[in-house]
Amino acid sequence: MSGPHISRTIADLRAQVKEWRRQGLSVAMVPTMGALHDGHLSLMREALSRADRCIVSIFVNPTQFAPTEDLDKYPRQLERDLERLAEVGVQLAFTPSPDEVYPEGFATKVVVGGPSAGLETDFRPHFFEGVATVVSKLFLQATPDCAVFGQKDYQQLCVVRRMCRDLDIPVEIIGAPTVRDAHGLAMSSRNAYLDAGQLAIARQMNVILYSAAAAIAEGADPDKETASASRALLDAGFSNVDYVAVRESGSLGPWQPETEGRLLAAAWLGSTRLIDNVAIAARS
Amino acid sequence: MSGPHISRTIADLRAQVKEWRRQGLSVAMVPTMGALHDGHLSLMREALSRADRCIVSIFVNPTQFAPTEDLDKYPRQLERDLERLAEVGVQLAFTPSPDEVYPEGFATKVVVGGPSAGLETDFRPHFFEGVATVVSKLFLQATPDCAVFGQKDYQQLCVVRRMCRDLDIPVEIIGAPTVRDAHGLAMSSRNAYLDAGQLAIARQMNVILYSAAAAIAEGADPDKETASASRALLDAGFSNVDYVAVRESGSLGPWQPETEGRLLAAAWLGSTRLIDNVAIAARS
Repeated sequence: MSGPHISRTIADLRAQVKEWRRQGLSVAMVPTMGALHDGHLSLMREALSRADRCIVSIFVNPTQFAPTEDLDKYPRQLERDLERLAEVGVQLAFTPSPDEVYPEGFATKVVVGGPSAGLETDFRPHFFEGVATVVSKLFLQATPDCAVFGQKDYQQLCVVRRMCRDLDIPVEIIGAPTVRDAHGLAMSSRNAYLDAGQLAIARQMNVILYSAAAAIAEGADPDKETASASRALLDAGFSNVDYVAVRESGSLGPWQPETEGRLLAAAWLGSTRLIDNVAIAARS
Repeated sequence: MSGPHISRTIADLRAQVKEWRRQGLSVAMVPTMGALHDGHLSLMREALSRADRCIVSIFVNPTQFAPTEDLDKYPRQLERDLERLAEVGVQLAFTPSPDEVYPEGFATKVVVGGPSAGLETDFRPHFFEGVATVVSKLFLQATPDCAVFGQKDYQQLCVVRRMCRDLDIPVEIIGAPTVRDAHGLAMSSRNAYLDAGQLAIARQMNVILYSAAAAIAEGADPDKETASASRALLDAGFSNVDYVAVRESGSLGPWQPETEGRLLAAAWLGSTRLIDNVAIAARS
């Protein structure tokens, strides 16, 4: 099992992609912040099923963390991450330094409206500016044909899609289903922060969301269901709920019962913030 | 003399560029808002000297005009513009509609800090957001190797350079010298608004700026020189002066006498706003 080629610079990444293009090969990308888990690996398998070569970027992007957030304690484990890339057969790991991505004098940001309104933005006001800016840069550095993002970060997926459409970045965005453990808990690098008691509580989140989404799909009032899901999260042991909300699945605008919806939630367990979301089937 | 190929859609533009790439040809771009004059033509000649093919976009970009500005009266003369492209030998005119550039749901902007601070931004606060967004889109639609901008819009040139560097847009930005009439007046589509009396006044602007820049290069105090240049513009008949300012030539940050500087000005003649700028040589 040979490991991936490692590019630490944009120049090296571009040289590698250029050589692939010369050979007529297609290229997929999976942007990550490392701390890779089975959820990430499923994105890479999806990428490899769609293109000849897969680039995984591993970069803990400082601009999407607020000063109060967990940038410093965010899990970093490059050696183990590279082993996991080798397992799946990823051909290239792009592991730039912060200075390579944001050289001195850097002064530009990409700001996406539309799907970025509300939800995460109400609690992390500059988060999607950071995400949109770094993802547009990664796409323009690597110039892949497609990129795979997890539905776990559903609002992020919608924001990246909007950004590519709006800026005419010629990368097809693929949303891959959330990978869950045997109890339905969505895989997340932040699950590593949870102790055994918190883990048991965290595993209730998906149960509560699936139940509310089913009720809404069958005609229950969305406002009542999101309020009672929020109470159920607190009753289960979550220390705080940022939001439980229903949105239209594509634009993340207001939901109409005849269209496909999405139920999205964010809640805290101590100092760890977890998010999850599930589909609301369109009424037939 | 055969005219340029006309692409009205992004898809048609991309198909044409793809065919050129297949033939191994290099591509330069000159983004314009039409109303082409000799200044634009010199940019196109520069572009054609650097690449096998030249694309000129003609698009009056609504997002870089404030509601109070001259979007509606901005001169539009597509037939004449196409004749001028044919004169110079430009191969492709990209003339998209506003809906092609900004389809329904469009919600993204590119915001450049650094060189966009002050000067034009003090008077046209959202101007460079509009410029940076449309230029990044044009570059990602056309994917040229290089693009030529006039030094006449000097702050714009610095902002576009910064944007390409920051977002890793692989387009080389070339700044071409300002083309002036026999009296030194910088060519501008807005000169068409001037009557004979105003034209005579407008022609003093470059004389005043060259004189102040020479004095500053020889050691005169920049603050005193810009204040007296401002008074000289009013004395010459300009109705209002937005700014006369000295900046470092690359970053547009504060100028140090041992480095190359730039003297930039904006002033009004009735309802017409004119800008110009000249170099301040580094002291040897």
